[in-house]
Amino acid sequence: MASDTIRTLIKDLGSKVGEEVSISGWISVRRDQGKMVFFDFRDRSGTVQGVVLPASAAIETAKECRSEYVVKVEGKVNQRPEKNRNDKVQNGDIELEVTGLTILAKAEPLPFDMSLDGYNLDLTTELDHRALALRHPRLQAIFKVQATIIDSFREFMKANDFFEFQAPAIVPATAEGGAEVFKIEYFDKQAYLTQSPQLYKQVVMTAFERVFSVNKVFRAEPSATTRHITEFVSLDAEMAFIDSWEDVRDMSEETVRYILGVVAKKHAKELEVLGATLPVMLERTPTLSLTEAQEKITAKTGRSVVGEKDLSSQDEQDICDIIKEETGSDFVYVYGYPTKQKPFYVYPNPENPEFNEGIDLLCRGREWLSGGRRINDYAQLMEHVQKWGLDPKTIEMFLEAFRYGAPPEGGFAFGAERMTMQMLGLKNIREATLFPRDMNRIDQSLASED
Amino acid sequence: MASDTIRTLIKDLGSKVGEEVSISGWISVRRDQGKMVFFDFRDRSGTVQGVVLPASAAIETAKECRSEYVVKVEGKVNQRPEKNRNDKVQNGDIELEVTGLTILAKAEPLPFDMSLDGYNLDLTTELDHRALALRHPRLQAIFKVQATIIDSFREFMKANDFFEFQAPAIVPATAEGGAEVFKIEYFDKQAYLTQSPQLYKQVVMTAFERVFSVNKVFRAEPSATTRHITEFVSLDAEMAFIDSWEDVRDMSEETVRYILGVVAKKHAKELEVLGATLPVMLERTPTLSLTEAQEKITAKTGRSVVGEKDLSSQDEQDICDIIKEETGSDFVYVYGYPTKQKPFYVYPNPENPEFNEGIDLLCRGREWLSGGRRINDYAQLMEHVQKWGLDPKTIEMFLEAFRYGAPPEGGFAFGAERMTMQMLGLKNIREATLFPRDMNRIDQSLASED
Repeated sequence: MASDTIRTLIKDLGSKVGEEVSISGWISVRRDQGKMVFFDFRDRSGTVQGVVLPASAAIETAKECRSEYVVKVEGKVNQRPEKNRNDKVQNGDIELEVTGLTILAKAEPLPFDMSLDGYNLDLTTELDHRALALRHPRLQAIFKVQATIIDSFREFMKANDFFEFQAPAIVPATAEGGAEVFKIEYFDKQAYLTQSPQLYKQVVMTAFERVFSVNKVFRAEPSATTRHITEFVSLDAEMAFIDSWEDVRDMSEETVRYILGVVAKKHAKELEVLGATLPVMLERTPTLSLTEAQEKITAKTGRSVVGEKDLSSQDEQDICDIIKEETGSDFVYVYGYPTKQKPFYVYPNPENPEFNEGIDLLCRGREWLSGGRRINDYAQLMEHVQKWGLDPKTIEMFLEAFRYGAPPEGGFAFGAERMTMQMLGLKNIREATLFPRDMNRIDQSLASED
Repeated sequence: MASDTIRTLIKDLGSKVGEEVSISGWISVRRDQGKMVFFDFRDRSGTVQGVVLPASAAIETAKECRSEYVVKVEGKVNQRPEKNRNDKVQNGDIELEVTGLTILAKAEPLPFDMSLDGYNLDLTTELDHRALALRHPRLQAIFKVQATIIDSFREFMKANDFFEFQAPAIVPATAEGGAEVFKIEYFDKQAYLTQSPQLYKQVVMTAFERVFSVNKVFRAEPSATTRHITEFVSLDAEMAFIDSWEDVRDMSEETVRYILGVVAKKHAKELEVLGATLPVMLERTPTLSLTEAQEKITAKTGRSVVGEKDLSSQDEQDICDIIKEETGSDFVYVYGYPTKQKPFYVYPNPENPEFNEGIDLLCRGREWLSGGRRINDYAQLMEHVQKWGLDPKTIEMFLEAFRYGAPPEGGFAFGAERMTMQMLGLKNIREATLFPRDMNRIDQSLASED
């Protein structure tokens, strides 16, 4: 029986010209052309055109099929006549002559056009129909690139002897916690959702030296901008026995370079679908102190920003433009922020303790990654805990790690969704988030549940 | 200057006999022997003995050092005299003659003995001092094996063309939700922590066919047993275009086989430290229906269990013992549970709809993994939604995925901590959890905060 043949993936059909095969997948498009029916079939590996001739045993079933029906198809792989070939699409030189067609599942009529060219949803509709929209090549391209960003981060970390650990999501009342923390009813007590694995990765670093994690973090920011979501994937690294913050810069730079390289190699097709161009990273990314960056911005734009505590969004855009013009680099590192503006664990510059050894990597006007050297000396750490007005009891485990000997160290972190958005030039972080959560939506709009 | 030499990892010292090297790490042990001082140095790659001779420039610093001090060491790698060699330990044939010693960080006196043989903490003390305890070889062994379990799961999934996705932690009021769900204050609304990525992985499966995820899940179980934690890592897989539940069994079996193989290959040393023996998996794991399993148990033990809705803990132990005796297999699959006892999405056996096509993999008396075939037909799914008394509005996104054509499918899941515990024969799930959370503890004991 034909239906007993083993499934061939659509991407492998090109090597089976002249053979009888069986494929399984979805119907992307059905085109009735008089007595014949044409299909675009789709599986996880690609698409192929099928034709059902009037005499085929499958013709009756073919007329019944609609878009997104799930089918099992038997047929013969034919070379297309020269004039019908299309080099621009996958399997454009072949066609499946359908001899058998079994409907595995039916689909209701689609609420919108799912074809590659016809797809033009506003984001709200797309999110209201996330399940269906995920079948579209544009969305698939985004999340394939994202999976590669995450996986290539892990690959690079492992290749550099970093140990993977699982950071917790549920945390106790934190010393750092502010207004932007989600509260959990934890039995008869209170707990919180983590905002960052920072303190945990430093703890694990004191045991394993080089550590990384890929874990969810949460921010209760009551903003509905294009850049805010409440749950995202944080990619974190921490390394012991550094000589200076420059070791952290170098490791983070090589990490980003590796990720860009893998994305370029694996995802030419997806980048094309998305119309995205990867940024240029030089052999050595230009690196400026905050003050140097501010001086450059002031000199170029006339806006007087020297002495400000941080770069504004406009500053970030300006310094990226300036560096691009000067060097051709899309990336620039900025280091050395006012010590008191940043968390207690950031290492102050020994020669100028008003500024710390924190770093940010900017690209095309946006922050891609941040990190820096941390304080490893227990006495200095306790001094900062005091100065920052923290309660040592709330970070007891963290402090223990440093009380019993911790090497000079630093690390960095970036968000998977944000890097996906920026690498692909997407306009809204929700486009780069599989199931975005914000103050108004968890899967469906929350407003509608009132 | 000697301190400018490049760091050598301790594992590489054996190939540098006769050379001057620099290492960095912690002092595990200091032994004063009259005028000489001996050290065990430790870094992420291993341990080595060092000796500071009376005439060494490092002798004064050596006398100041204590356990867990972080040091940079210059020295010469010497072969040990034959009579002092110890083949049973790493670098047992060499010794580092210390010529320079720099203290990078001091440590306070340890609250307990951290040496390999001397370590014998009760679990409460170990958890109260998690940061320090993580430096112990026994704990390091556990979490190295766990990292391999997680990473080899991903490796096997990728090799089989599964797509990695990120399942959300924050979920809306769920149709399935029960008492064991944590509530989050979500701005002025309510949200919950996910108990399982089940519905999300089925959604993503309808777009990518084969999908997997490694994500945190949460259970608000008010139990303080050795098997309950509130946050754990769920390893999930879902696959489309299966012919039957047996495809799910096969894929899950090969996944576990692969993981066991990688653990065996990479972690002989860790298994030895932990005194663990990996379970035996036959080429084909014995597979019984629930009823067949119950009949065997009844026949063997005289306990009348046929017709019970599920296997009790005692039943799980008994069926594992019986199968081990009959076949030599430590593993056994049990399939076919009463349909109404299980979630609405589990596929009922078409020939006997009172029983479903859910499966469990048991090993040494415990459940390791569960899964099964799911309903893919939209009409049948809606029928179950009704029968189970669920509100379709609360699973709208899930239902949409099936409304528009979903292939025959199934999947499986297991917990990383639980598999670690069972593979290594640990007595308490907290031992297999880096930062365990339970009703009484989040890092530190919660009781102490009252």
